[in-house]
Amino acid sequence: MSAKTFLYAQSGGVTPVINATAAALIRTARAAGHRVLAARDGILGVLEERLVDTATLSDAMLDGLNHTPGGAFGSCRYKLKGLEDNRREYERLVEVFRAHQVSCFFYNGGNDSADTALKVSRLADDLDYPLQCIAVPKTIDNDLAETDNCPGFGSVAKYVAVSILEASLDVMSMSSTSTKVFVLEVMGRHAGWIAAAGGLAARQPGDAPQIILFPEIPFDQDRFCAAVKQSVERHGYCAIVASEGLRDASGDFLSAAGSRDAFGHQQLGGVAPAVAAVVKRQLGYKYHWAVSDYLQRSARHIASATDLAHAQAVGAAAVALAEQGSSAVMPVIRRLSDQPYRWEIASAPLDLIANHEKKLPRDFISEDGFGITEKARRYLQPLILGESFPPFGDDGLPRYVRPQLDLLPRKLPEFSA
Amino acid sequence: MSAKTFLYAQSGGVTPVINATAAALIRTARAAGHRVLAARDGILGVLEERLVDTATLSDAMLDGLNHTPGGAFGSCRYKLKGLEDNRREYERLVEVFRAHQVSCFFYNGGNDSADTALKVSRLADDLDYPLQCIAVPKTIDNDLAETDNCPGFGSVAKYVAVSILEASLDVMSMSSTSTKVFVLEVMGRHAGWIAAAGGLAARQPGDAPQIILFPEIPFDQDRFCAAVKQSVERHGYCAIVASEGLRDASGDFLSAAGSRDAFGHQQLGGVAPAVAAVVKRQLGYKYHWAVSDYLQRSARHIASATDLAHAQAVGAAAVALAEQGSSAVMPVIRRLSDQPYRWEIASAPLDLIANHEKKLPRDFISEDGFGITEKARRYLQPLILGESFPPFGDDGLPRYVRPQLDLLPRKLPEFSA
Repeated sequence: MSAKTFLYAQSGGVTPVINATAAALIRTARAAGHRVLAARDGILGVLEERLVDTATLSDAMLDGLNHTPGGAFGSCRYKLKGLEDNRREYERLVEVFRAHQVSCFFYNGGNDSADTALKVSRLADDLDYPLQCIAVPKTIDNDLAETDNCPGFGSVAKYVAVSILEASLDVMSMSSTSTKVFVLEVMGRHAGWIAAAGGLAARQPGDAPQIILFPEIPFDQDRFCAAVKQSVERHGYCAIVASEGLRDASGDFLSAAGSRDAFGHQQLGGVAPAVAAVVKRQLGYKYHWAVSDYLQRSARHIASATDLAHAQAVGAAAVALAEQGSSAVMPVIRRLSDQPYRWEIASAPLDLIANHEKKLPRDFISEDGFGITEKARRYLQPLILGESFPPFGDDGLPRYVRPQLDLLPRKLPEFSA
Repeated sequence: MSAKTFLYAQSGGVTPVINATAAALIRTARAAGHRVLAARDGILGVLEERLVDTATLSDAMLDGLNHTPGGAFGSCRYKLKGLEDNRREYERLVEVFRAHQVSCFFYNGGNDSADTALKVSRLADDLDYPLQCIAVPKTIDNDLAETDNCPGFGSVAKYVAVSILEASLDVMSMSSTSTKVFVLEVMGRHAGWIAAAGGLAARQPGDAPQIILFPEIPFDQDRFCAAVKQSVERHGYCAIVASEGLRDASGDFLSAAGSRDAFGHQQLGGVAPAVAAVVKRQLGYKYHWAVSDYLQRSARHIASATDLAHAQAVGAAAVALAEQGSSAVMPVIRRLSDQPYRWEIASAPLDLIANHEKKLPRDFISEDGFGITEKARRYLQPLILGESFPPFGDDGLPRYVRPQLDLLPRKLPEFSA
């Protein structure tokens, strides 16, 4: 295949390993003689023609990206409207691709990004512009269909399991005279994948976390308090992992109602203090709570080596799909066995992925609704395997990088999104 | 010196490296032929004669303790009243020491523990019981007098600096369309040592965190909002480290008033949401916030190797002090040079330490009150140097240990504290 120009963009919430995907994609494309442009701030940078050429990134910088969290090119939460409602934006995207002779668009994101990539590929067809659109999976929410798991999730899972394990040793040592209940709030708006990962810390019966509060299981204050009380009486303390998406029986979020993001998703936060307040009010136990928020999804220092390998593999596979002439597809992870964990990369059509949401199966949650099952453990365990510590500098901090690339000269008039 | 019986106890909030101190102390005493008992749950376990013999801890278990967070023997927040008010409790302590022929009491804690050790040593003198009392420093608050720094602090400092560095890369990548302000709440009730450590992440002008909110600097909403606005306009985002002890000009905590612990300290939490609410209300920026709470002081996975070395050294030095016949003293860390960092262990009398509090010097805080000075950096930098990752198991989690030791048979009647 002759040298082509590709365009890569990052979308949605970032992960500890999204830049590893970018680095692998750039390296693989570069090795095959292709040129890789990147958009600043995701699809917004495409619309606004804010593009950079990754050719100037050194090997050392690509190594650095491989272990740097955040989204090095900038990400965005910007939802394109439907093709009918806003054909103009889609046309602009195709104009930008045409102006820069982009033959393949790689969009590294979740459900919404897969949907965008699919729509762009359809409009390019309509406009007779030869464009391949390839979605590259990334989401800590682990809710993409067709793939065994999503790059980014394994590292967040490891962070959450390690954090609740460590904090539980703390509360355990304080519990005789002080804190008896610890609540860790984790992300996962609609699905309890991340909360479930906390359950990996509980390897023996009675181990922390004694309670996981899933968004899938309506919060029942009486049953919850009884479980906390039992744990404190039996073990001296109770460690709880609570999903930000926890709702009561009426479907209302336990956290205070917040603002909405560009996708119309309610912005949550504050489940941990709400749960802690229930503990204080109903049981009178001393409590502590933590909200890990962005820390969990940027903690590259405790990334999962397995997750990192996935992230690199989907980046390289995306280029292979491009070289094969595929479009409207996404590289996916296919699990071959749980133990030892073996996997391969396959691909799936975007119409099976866009706007689908992979829910946490009910049989991953224990019957009482407060823990995970063996089936869940078999699925989750391999995803946190292995460490991949970043290099640290002589200032005691990880050597994270920030590529500084000049914007390419514009070829088109300005466009205001 | 002939074989003696020592008693070790842990006090107050635990740290990622307090067990490393315990392991070093036990190893050093064992090598010299002494017997080391440990109290369960700190001084409470002494009062209640809940003691264990560490002789049965294997070398592998001591290695494990060296990399396990929390307080392996149980800690406590239990403040003995003054000698005049509650002579009975002090007498009981001496009775327990006498019953188990304890010649030296090692109390591993902070200010309150140094005070307890000092009072116990005085009462033992009064009662003509030959007892050495040695305080062993431990506190993430870094507020002990006479020592350059406190074991536990360096690891928390490293966690906070790494966490705000990572989260700032996250918010930086999201800021074009979404979150512009991120607030990380850290511990430090009365002194901003931990908050200051966040400043280590800012190595170039403009780097995150752009704002540190110290307990030493009254919160001025207008000046704060102006600084946030400037950072967002200049850098596209603003990363903030906020101390839990932040107060307004009237001296009121910004966090909602909470309960009090056994020492009468107000239990805080919730500064981050309070600060974020100010940002939202006054500036309208999208925000995220995290409260690291126990995670920061139990994150052994990202401990500072320098801090670990300090923790081990004070444990070993405490035994050396005991062998020299010292009492009412604490091994302290003396800094010999900043760069390269060189240090040695010395000792200081407890009356210079008990109930003193080492404040963060004003010249460690920048003139505008929102950052750290070069002087602070020279002091803090060495304390986060080096990594000491725990070993990880084939389940992807750190191999933390939990020693299971049987209580020694009681020699005294029950005592209810």
